[in-house]
Order: sequence, then structure tokens, then C-alpha cells
Amino acid sequence: MTFEFYYVTQQKTSSFPAQNRRGRRQPQRRQHHRYPQSIKAGVLKIIPLGGMEEVGRNMTVFEYGDDIVILDMGLQFPEEDMPGIDFIIPNISYLKGKEKNIRGVIFSHGHLDHIGAAPILLKELGYPPIIGRDLTIALVKKRLEDYEEKSIKNLKVIRINSTEDRMNLGQFRIGFFNVEHSIMDAIGVILNTPSGTIIHPGDWTMEKNPRNHLPITYNHLANLPRPKILMLESLGATDLRQSITTEEEMYANLEKLITEATGKVIIATFSSQIRRIGHILEFASQIGKQVALDGYSMKINVEIAKELGYIKVPKKTLISVKDLHKYPENKIIVLCTGAQGEGNAVLSRIMTGEHKYIKIRKQDTIVFSSSVIPGNERTIQRLKDSLYRQCDNVIHNDIMDVHTSGHSNAESIKEIIRQIKPDYFLPVYANHFFLKEAAKLAIQIGFPRDKIFVLDNGSILEFHGQQAPRINAKKTDASYVFVDGLGVGDIGQIVLRDRQMMAGDGMFVVIAIIDSQTGKVKNSPDIISRGFIYMRESKELLAEVRKKVRQIVEETTMAGHPINWTYVKDNIRDKIGKFLYNKTQRRPMVLPVVIEV
Amino acid sequence: MTFEFYYVTQQKTSSFPAQNRRGRRQPQRRQHHRYPQSIKAGVLKIIPLGGMEEVGRNMTVFEYGDDIVILDMGLQFPEEDMPGIDFIIPNISYLKGKEKNIRGVIFSHGHLDHIGAAPILLKELGYPPIIGRDLTIALVKKRLEDYEEKSIKNLKVIRINSTEDRMNLGQFRIGFFNVEHSIMDAIGVILNTPSGTIIHPGDWTMEKNPRNHLPITYNHLANLPRPKILMLESLGATDLRQSITTEEEMYANLEKLITEATGKVIIATFSSQIRRIGHILEFASQIGKQVALDGYSMKINVEIAKELGYIKVPKKTLISVKDLHKYPENKIIVLCTGAQGEGNAVLSRIMTGEHKYIKIRKQDTIVFSSSVIPGNERTIQRLKDSLYRQCDNVIHNDIMDVHTSGHSNAESIKEIIRQIKPDYFLPVYANHFFLKEAAKLAIQIGFPRDKIFVLDNGSILEFHGQQAPRINAKKTDASYVFVDGLGVGDIGQIVLRDRQMMAGDGMFVVIAIIDSQTGKVKNSPDIISRGFIYMRESKELLAEVRKKVRQIVEETTMAGHPINWTYVKDNIRDKIGKFLYNKTQRRPMVLPVVIEV
Repeated sequence: MTFEFYYVTQQKTSSFPAQNRRGRRQPQRRQHHRYPQSIKAGVLKIIPLGGMEEVGRNMTVFEYGDDIVILDMGLQFPEEDMPGIDFIIPNISYLKGKEKNIRGVIFSHGHLDHIGAAPILLKELGYPPIIGRDLTIALVKKRLEDYEEKSIKNLKVIRINSTEDRMNLGQFRIGFFNVEHSIMDAIGVILNTPSGTIIHPGDWTMEKNPRNHLPITYNHLANLPRPKILMLESLGATDLRQSITTEEEMYANLEKLITEATGKVIIATFSSQIRRIGHILEFASQIGKQVALDGYSMKINVEIAKELGYIKVPKKTLISVKDLHKYPENKIIVLCTGAQGEGNAVLSRIMTGEHKYIKIRKQDTIVFSSSVIPGNERTIQRLKDSLYRQCDNVIHNDIMDVHTSGHSNAESIKEIIRQIKPDYFLPVYANHFFLKEAAKLAIQIGFPRDKIFVLDNGSILEFHGQQAPRINAKKTDASYVFVDGLGVGDIGQIVLRDRQMMAGDGMFVVIAIIDSQTGKVKNSPDIISRGFIYMRESKELLAEVRKKVRQIVEETTMAGHPINWTYVKDNIRDKIGKFLYNKTQRRPMVLPVVIEV
Repeated sequence: MTFEFYYVTQQKTSSFPAQNRRGRRQPQRRQHHRYPQSIKAGVLKIIPLGGMEEVGRNMTVFEYGDDIVILDMGLQFPEEDMPGIDFIIPNISYLKGKEKNIRGVIFSHGHLDHIGAAPILLKELGYPPIIGRDLTIALVKKRLEDYEEKSIKNLKVIRINSTEDRMNLGQFRIGFFNVEHSIMDAIGVILNTPSGTIIHPGDWTMEKNPRNHLPITYNHLANLPRPKILMLESLGATDLRQSITTEEEMYANLEKLITEATGKVIIATFSSQIRRIGHILEFASQIGKQVALDGYSMKINVEIAKELGYIKVPKKTLISVKDLHKYPENKIIVLCTGAQGEGNAVLSRIMTGEHKYIKIRKQDTIVFSSSVIPGNERTIQRLKDSLYRQCDNVIHNDIMDVHTSGHSNAESIKEIIRQIKPDYFLPVYANHFFLKEAAKLAIQIGFPRDKIFVLDNGSILEFHGQQAPRINAKKTDASYVFVDGLGVGDIGQIVLRDRQMMAGDGMFVVIAIIDSQTGKVKNSPDIISRGFIYMRESKELLAEVRKKVRQIVEETTMAGHPINWTYVKDNIRDKIGKFLYNKTQRRPMVLPVVIEV
């Protein structure tokens, strides 16, 4: 395969950086044209598609002529006002009818918000080729397998062997670069077209003191063909701390805790923190402690990383939870899931005493090597409360640095812009307000305001060769697609609103059998209610309701006349609703059932 | 009224502080016996009663012989897994039958988590006398008025005129002291009995640089009669920052923003931040800007504070929101509620454009002078997103110090212990794990471990004169009392569980009319479902269910035999439930209605 980056676009010198630190204009890097080609620049489109409020986090579409390349297919977990929803996936209506143009789906790394929707979306799009490094691909495969048996036989995989790999996807020239993130095999992507070169690190952090390798720099990307378009994960834009915990500090703390523990050590972390899990396993084997893994995703992820040789650990170090009792307490470590307080995860089961093999003792050390996902605060507080009651050494990030986030802070955002010197800056992967703050950071260091684009999901940003890029006035549909059980996209706002309503005040079904001859209620109306009041203690109220239903029916019907059933029902709904509200100040969903006999 | 603190208890010298900084034992303060009395020490009981997970935050009961004094009657807002609940109040079953012993209810300050349950609990307890400073009492009265008209005529009020006031409540000798908190008239309480002296600052912070007065110290409390029992709000126990934002810094930032704003300034804050609101009003009048208040509680609180002379502001400074258009944009400030993203509050209505008089312009400055209450993170993020879209200057604590919390940090907790030198330390007002961390802080500075008690709500800690205090093996009931609409305590776990279930997957009512002669279903069974699937798109599924219901009924009944209706219903519930789960992987609440004709 021949491979050359397009270098055809003639552009004026970048306006960034405007001046060097001494206030003088820096000489501009000369534009290289090593591989001139006579290709006319077409329209390059960038369309962030998924991630709820986090623009583009789950999926981004790049389109150039008849070629489409997709970056990631992730999922998002629902918010509080979406009861019962399992997760949310990107809306791909933009791709409908263009399936044949999709040249490939690149996965930046193996976290769920980047691969979780793959089983559903790959299938829907007719299984275009997927591109990724080994661990990422292995995790995508596992995800497919879990979702639908044998679906992986449909996969067409292009392995990325090294960051030096280059490939053509239609007219796109694709390159890669190393990034630092909390999972192995995270990769940054270069999408080069005659109209511009997109540089997208995906999730990234700038680790000042990484374990086992030199800090990653991005200066080499400054030499890519222009215009250079930097799409940058900007979740840390409001993290103004000058120094953030380094990996080294975190590992030093974890290792000290493990070494000094007089009881067993239970470390709860995200199962996606494969790098950290690997380090802990290695350290355990060095100091002669045994590690048991618990939690489905934890075990699976380690298994996959081991198979790929990414985690190297002697056989005797890893033991089954069932064998924990065979070792002295001060020689064992449990690595488990559930640090977010998920009710069915391992840590919660340990906490409640339901875990068959792991019981908490006072002298144990329990470590939350994790952050708090927004929305989980109170659940985690309750989990901590319970653990503190049972154990003297509960360690979390509030009191010791036992977690680093894998995301950059404000300083790093400025630093990476200085290194890459892009022509355009597109902050992404975070709520709108973070993106605006990232834009402010860029402006602070002299980046021209008019070369920053803050997109929404569904926005279409177009680069037309020499002209200034513009946001298409028409957005593509990026509304949420809810997944609930087997249903994909079948839950809409109506169903959600009903769920919210019933959650708030319950429901109240009134069943009236009406004699169509007399227009009177036969027997006593039946009432079924859930989530409204405690029925047994409300007999009086229910008797009043029954009486009222009779009245309402008899007022609305007339013997010998045809009955307007809709009118009867509406009347029951309205009047009983008002009656119940007056009595209780609650508004249950009132459902009248009228049966004609 | 004669007033003397009891000084009768003979105790060994305190073991804290064990040593001074140079490592030598400090000479102990001589125990004063200025007012010896021949009173035999009885049992002093301390019972934290309310605050969900936050021990004692909403209410604490003190009992000595036949005398009971209560501190605060607050409410708590519900958690995510309590849908539809309005709020939660302390469980007062301990006080049932003891109403006549209640000598008074002291309110430490006027925040809802300390006064919000007063209308309900005062009524239930037969309106014992209430004690507080002016603003606190005024807010309690307003709360009663809002809850039940004319109920304030039942109030018996004892005003605290100054912190020098002393009073007898039964055998309790009550004193007060100044504390720093985010609302005026917050007060610390001394409850002195022959068995010990409780020192309780309520909510407090240690402001290093307060406006308008000297920093508050607590050294004078060290002289109180022993044993001194310090009950200390310890929410800041894991706040390890050495320096926290001072009031002075916060006000400087707010004033700079207000002064430099080229558009209008919208400041959203808690309506309970009356001190801050007062400061902003004063500053506005100084620099000649107009202020409009919006939000019911904001207006009421300012009105009350003005009436009491706590907020002094020239008439022309305060304007109505209706008159905002009469002033230049750069001369107006809006102080409003809704910084937590509450859907019906002012800021949300401004955000959505629904506010009649306040429209956002790009050049406006919108300030969140507030913290994020755990659980509201995502809602607030969405609110910020929308405001950032409409306005170039959205300011919040992440990017500038425009809020201070009113709660102490770890350093202050150590400092106040050093100043008061209590004999016993009871961290309170926070989740258990914070209390344990506060205990660790005390131990760090040499406080004896065995003189620290971490209580639960419902725990009864008893001081028996000379003997070591002990926690009674029997707890009193401190389970949550839910308030929903007019119902107090009528919503239990069953109703909540039903609500959660329906929120998750909706409900599914099957109505079958069965001919008791033939045992067959007449007509087609009716189905009502909400929150489960979108019914119009599920006709096939519903047809299958109807068929299945017929089958189930016919399998379970036999012509000519008496029908076991319970068995028929159970069968429908189980089999239809399983069927729906297989088809959808959802578990709606299935409710069978069987009607015999």
C-alpha cells in the first residue's frame, strides 16, 4: 500500500503562536511539501454524534467526498430523569443511506464510552471494517460476544501494529500517535485529507511522571500537513490546579498501603483501569502477596490483557476468591469492582456481608482507587459509611491520593496546544461549558478566537479547501437513542414521562362495571393502586373514592340513552384525580377502566 | 431568674491536651467551683435524632432526669431512591409519652435543615416553648405560617437577646456563644447539667478574615464546668486544604465582577445566604446599582431580615423585577434562586427564556454564588451548558472563588478542639465516615481515643456522673419519616419500592372478564400499560399477551368447578411477567384484574 500524507493545501502561515515569550514574532515553521499531489481539495466534514451532553465523546463522523471514517462507538449511562434506561447510544441517522461509504471505524481505546455501542451500531451499519490496537479490539470483540452470540464472525478487523502504521481509508490518510490514558493501547488518530489534517488524541492526560516510559510529548505533530485541526478532549478545562497527582505518587501510596497492611487489602477500582490493575498485580508478585480478582468485568479484562501479554503475572500470584482462606490475611489483596456503589457489584456485596468468600475485618484496608462519577455521590457516601463501620482503614481520594483521573487539566490543555500549534482548535468530549472554558484557555495563550469552533452533537463543521471553515446551518439529528432491555430507540419521551409520573406519586386504577341499560355501576368499583398510599391504612379514602365513582358515572350517564364511554372515563380521571389531590396533595396517575355489561 | 452553672462534678484532670508542643505536660487549668451546690449528678442523655445519614444534623434531644431540651427541628431532602418524597423529618418516637417533659426547643440558626420540620414536630409535641435569636425565630414563624395558617398563635417564644443570656430549662442551665456561619443569628449552645456541660456550636466555620468583625475564637469555653462534652459539626473533616477561600476573597471577587460588568449581573445563590445577600445589597447601593430580588424564598428572607434591621439598604436600591427595564443594563443586579438547577426556580426560568422580565444577553454576567449539593451535579451541568450558550460571562466556583461554604475544614476542627479542650469529643452533623475522620483528626492532636464517641441517629449516650459515659445498648427508633404531600410518615418501604419498580419498567394491567360458569374469558382481555413500551408500536406483542391470558385462564379453570381467583391472578402475573421479560428484557409491574360475571 502506498502511503503519503496530502500536503497540497496552500495556506498562509498560522496565526498561532502570535508571539514568543519575549514578545517577538516567532519565525514560522516552513510548510513542507514533500509529497505534492495534484488533488483538488474537497469538503471535509466533522460531525460529533454522540455522548449526550458530552460533545462527540462517544462517536465522531468524518466525511470527505464519498468516504466516511468513524471514530469510536461508545455509550453513555442515563441520567436521573431517565428511569429504567440501561444506556444511551449515538444517533446515527446521518449515516442512514450512506452505509456503503463507511471505510472504517477506528476505536481510540477500549473504554465503554468509546466502544460500548459497537455491537448495536456495527450491526446496524452492516459491519464496516474496524481499526484498533490489540487490547481495544479484544474488548470490542468481547462486547459483541456478550451482546449477541457469534456476532463477532461478522467483524472485519484491521490491526494497528504500531503508532508508525499508516493506512488509507478511501481518500482519508490515517496515522496514529501515542497518548497517555488510564488503559493500555489508547491511541491518538491523525485523519489527513487534502482539505485538512485532523489531530485527535481521544481521551488523554499529560502525565509528568509516568511509570515505565518517558513523558509523552506532541511536538512532532506540529509538522503535520496544514491546516491542522486539533480536536481535543477538554474535560479538564476547569481543573485549575497547578499540580495534579502523578501516577508515581499514586502508585507510591498504593504500594505503601499494600506493604504495610496488617490485614487483607481490598482495592475497588474501575475494571477499565487495566494499566493500574496490571501494576498492582506486578507489585503483589514482587512482595509475595496473592491477588484475587472479583467482578465479571474485572476478571474478563485481566484475562484479555493477560492473553495479549499486557499483564505479566506469575501463576501463583493470581488466586481464586474461593482460595483466599488458604492464605494469611496480611498476604492477600482483593481487586474488585463496585467503587461507585453499584448495588450488585462486588464491593456492595462485601459491604452487606452477602459475599461468600470475603468478610470485612477491622484491620483490613479498603481502598477506593477511583473517582466519583457525578450522580453517584450519595450512594458512595452510604457505601463508605458502612465500610467505615466495619473497618478501621478505609482509604479514598479525599484523604490520600490513590487515584489519578486519566484526564488532562487546564495547564495540559494549554501545553498540548503550544506543542501541536494547530490552525484550528475544536474542544470536544465534554459538556458545552467545559468546551467554552477550553476555548478561553486557548485564547489566553494567544490562539485566535475565530479559529476556535465549539460544536454540538449533530453540528456539521465543513472545511472547504482554502476558504474559512463554517458550521452548516442544518444540524443532523443527534437526539438520544435509549436502550432499555432489548429495545433500542423504542423508549421515547412519552414512556419516560409516564415512568417519572408514576415514580413521583404512583398510579391509581379505577375499574367500574357499568350496566349499559341502566347506566349505573354494578357492584362496587375495584381500585388498584401502587406507589400512592399504603392501601391498608387508607380504607376510608378508598370508600369515598368508590362512592364518588358511582356518583360520577351516574351523573354522566342516563338510563336508556347510549353511553359516551370516553366522556365517562375522562370524567372519572379528572374528578378522581382532583379528589385525591385535595385529600393528599399527591397526583397519582389515574387510569379509569370502564367495562360495559 | 437566678442562674448559676452547675460545677459540682469532681473529675480528674482532663487528659487533653496530653502534652504541650515542647513535649512537656501542661499544667492543668484548676477546676473552678465558684458555685458549689449539693446536687447529686443524674443521668444525662444525648440522643441525635434526625438527618438521615447526617447524624444529629436535624435534631438532637438532651435529657436529664425529667427534663428534655431539644436542639433544632430540621428536615432533609430525599435521595434518588425515594421518588416523590417531598422531604424527611426526624423520627420522634423517643419523645412519645414524654411531651410534658420538654422544656424547650432551641433553634441554632434559621436554615431549613435546622428549622424545616418545626411546623410538623412542634404541633405533634404540643408546642413546647421555642428559643432562638430574632432572625431564626422569624424564619421559624414564617415556616409555620406557610405550612398551616394561624398555627403561629400556638407558639411560645423565648427570645435570645444576646449571647450573654442565660436561662434555666428545667434542670438544664443554658448558655450561648457566637459562631460564624453563613446566616445571621447563628448561635452556639451550652447545655449545662450536674453530669456534664455540652458545648454545641451547631453549624460553624472558622473564618480567618470575616467582614465587619474580628475572627471568633472559642478559648473562653475552655473555662466551662467539666466534664465538657464537645458536639462538633464535622462535615469538613476530609477537607484537607490548608487555606480555604476567605469571605474577604469571595466578596472582593463578587464586588469586582459587579463593578466591572458591562451588562447586567445575575447572581444565583441560596436564599438562606442572607448575610451574603445583605452584603451585595449594601455594595450595590454604594456604587449606585439597582438590585431586583427574585424567587419566593429570596424575597421573603430579605423582607424578614430588613424588618429586623439586619439588612440596611436604601429604598431606591431595591427595585422590582418589573422595573428592571427602566434602568441601564450595566446598572442592574438580579439576586435570585435556582443555582441548584431546580426546574421551577428563577434561574431555570431565565435560562429557558420563560422569565417575563429577565432575558439573558451575551454581555451579562451570571454568577453561581453557591456550592453544588451532592446529587445535583448533572442538572447543574446542563444549566451551565445552556447559560454558557447564551452568555459570555458565566462565573462559578470552579473558575473563581465566588462562594464560601460556611463549614469548617480539617484544620479548623483541630483548632476548635485545641481551644475548647473538651473532656469528650462527639463529632456530629455528617455521614458516619466524616465523623470517623473527625475522630482521627482529634486523635492526631493527642485527644484520647476512648473519650471520643461516634454516635448514630437513635443512639443514646449516657453520662452517669463520675462514671465513664456509655452508649446504651438499646437504640431508639430513628428510621426515616417521609413527608409526601399532606402525608407525614404514611409512605413506607412498600410504597417506595412500588414507585421504584414502576419508574424502572412501568406497569402492565391485564383485565380479564371471566364467565364463572364456563371458566372462559369473555371478549378480549383489556390491557393498560404505562412506562413500559410505546403501545401503538407494540400491537403484535399485545395481541400475543391477550392470547396468552386466555390460555392461562383456561388452563387454570375448569367449567362447572369453582374458580380459585387468587390462583388465576397469580398465574397471570407470573406467566405474563415472564413472557414480557423474554420478549423485552424488561420487568414491568404486572397487575391482573379478574372480574367474575
